[in-house]
Amino acid sequence: MADLTPLTAIGEFALINRLQAGITNRQPGTVLGIGDDAAIIAPTPGTELVMTTDLLVEGIHFDLAFCPLRHLGYKAVAVNVSDIAAMNALPTQLVVALSAGPRFTVEAIEELYAGMRLACEAYNVDLVGGDTTASRGGLTLAVTVLGEVPAGQAVRRSGGKPTDLLCVSGDLGAAFLGLQVLEREKQAFLADPDTQPELENYEYVVQRQLRAEARLDIVHELRELGVHPTSMIDISDGLASEVLHLCAASGTGARVFTEFLPMANPTLEVAAEFNLDPITCALNGGEDYELLFTVPVTDHEKLKNHPDITIIGHLTTADDGANLVTKSGQAVPLQAQGWTSF
Amino acid sequence: MADLTPLTAIGEFALINRLQAGITNRQPGTVLGIGDDAAIIAPTPGTELVMTTDLLVEGIHFDLAFCPLRHLGYKAVAVNVSDIAAMNALPTQLVVALSAGPRFTVEAIEELYAGMRLACEAYNVDLVGGDTTASRGGLTLAVTVLGEVPAGQAVRRSGGKPTDLLCVSGDLGAAFLGLQVLEREKQAFLADPDTQPELENYEYVVQRQLRAEARLDIVHELRELGVHPTSMIDISDGLASEVLHLCAASGTGARVFTEFLPMANPTLEVAAEFNLDPITCALNGGEDYELLFTVPVTDHEKLKNHPDITIIGHLTTADDGANLVTKSGQAVPLQAQGWTSF
Repeated sequence: MADLTPLTAIGEFALINRLQAGITNRQPGTVLGIGDDAAIIAPTPGTELVMTTDLLVEGIHFDLAFCPLRHLGYKAVAVNVSDIAAMNALPTQLVVALSAGPRFTVEAIEELYAGMRLACEAYNVDLVGGDTTASRGGLTLAVTVLGEVPAGQAVRRSGGKPTDLLCVSGDLGAAFLGLQVLEREKQAFLADPDTQPELENYEYVVQRQLRAEARLDIVHELRELGVHPTSMIDISDGLASEVLHLCAASGTGARVFTEFLPMANPTLEVAAEFNLDPITCALNGGEDYELLFTVPVTDHEKLKNHPDITIIGHLTTADDGANLVTKSGQAVPLQAQGWTSF
Repeated sequence: MADLTPLTAIGEFALINRLQAGITNRQPGTVLGIGDDAAIIAPTPGTELVMTTDLLVEGIHFDLAFCPLRHLGYKAVAVNVSDIAAMNALPTQLVVALSAGPRFTVEAIEELYAGMRLACEAYNVDLVGGDTTASRGGLTLAVTVLGEVPAGQAVRRSGGKPTDLLCVSGDLGAAFLGLQVLEREKQAFLADPDTQPELENYEYVVQRQLRAEARLDIVHELRELGVHPTSMIDISDGLASEVLHLCAASGTGARVFTEFLPMANPTLEVAAEFNLDPITCALNGGEDYELLFTVPVTDHEKLKNHPDITIIGHLTTADDGANLVTKSGQAVPLQAQGWTSF
């Protein structure tokens, strides 16, 4: 095992020097990155900016017993980029504020940064600044991302109209089931530390939990198809919760058809094994980081056969409420059992 | 005593609704504030952006035993705005990521936000987004601020030239001594909870500790005087540490004259009472949040009689090193005993 360096051994400035060593800037708008009181950014003329921040707290949002630091770093960037994508924007720069308790080593923080750098590469975003400090407890990571969108083209939650088609990217429920698998293996390990984790048959769902991806590809795809969503939100707390947010902001109701909810086969299999209703996993599981958006009904042709976008229903007037329509045609009010950290 | 609401009683979305109730936007560039996946910002044409993030961690950066939550909220904004000022920029928007453990109430978080709102008003910056989550431990606050500066006018740490005059705003060492007073009162209180804190004679230094202010006024002032600093940094970790950063970035040395270090009378009095060398407090105390900057020697006339800016020395070539020059003319190498959280 390689020698590990306690954070106390090198001090804040030396740590920052080590962390920034592997960082390269790709965005033409990054005038000055890490190393001054603030980064300097030249926005592209004709664009608007979007800005979002997300906090990941140890023991609340992640468990280092089964989430490797490199994956955590990647995820911290991905979940923020997902919010940028949900505005129809592309990320450009980000800053990271990080606090870590005495049990973390320099090498551990480097692993975390390695994951963030991978995500920066994948999403073409520059890490231009940060703050790294001690804490009395665990690890806390706050990432703030800046993005750009052609002026006037940002998509809010509030633009949906009755009859607009309700669409989701990818598939749902897998990340939640991946978490169930990881929790089960953790309990087995705690009961008998000689147990080897059994993850072979759970690759898809575990990967969806540990390696969240932001759907920037969908933002590009929609632009190429000439489809401009009327409203959009990313699915972090479960589909039901996000449909309700979108309806509340747009002043509409919605009809979501259970039979159209996109779920991958491994998700269905794991749900069966855990005796969980797959529809419930899709509606309330959370951490899918897919995009939920609405388009005018006239865009139906452009999207109906898309392999990675599914039309799951449509908006209605507000007085119809937001409903889930079962295969038998029964309408049940959608309820948010979305995740809350409190 | 009013009824207090545990954070667990209302949930994340209701909390966000309560917190955003008091927030108004002032910046013309704020297209969309709190409430969507991200804020939307229209940058002023012809400007560049600056962006910085700072983390405040309970038990490391602040002690709620003597730092009221409203002051803490104000300070979290001020220390970030100070970094924006140090780039010669003006703040425009900010986002806040906050995690709080189970002992915090809704009312406590509202106090914190009240302080942030006050600072937003004072510095004319809009709070446009955030993330609020639970933690297993104490309070952690990450603030990220965006600012604007006319294109090409941002001032870096690296632009200083030998012979440039070294200037500081305001006075030094007070915040550090304020902390000593507060720590002493805390110990007295812990020893005997019936003790009343004795703070009457310490107003100036205590206020400098608890209510940090960013020197945006100096940014405006320098613009009005037609003085464009060649390099600038804010003084958060003590003057000595910042002079060394500035010299390293600019590739210069420096001569700082002890007799010119600006210190307020109350600071000198409290230093004497605590048997501390006031020069050491000024050099290594930290948390002054004044601006340290350099100007061409030709700007001497414009600044020499300024009531709130002091010329404390000048830059030299790198091989002279960074030195402190005592009243008797002796040169001693400056040493950073700047604060580190690790």
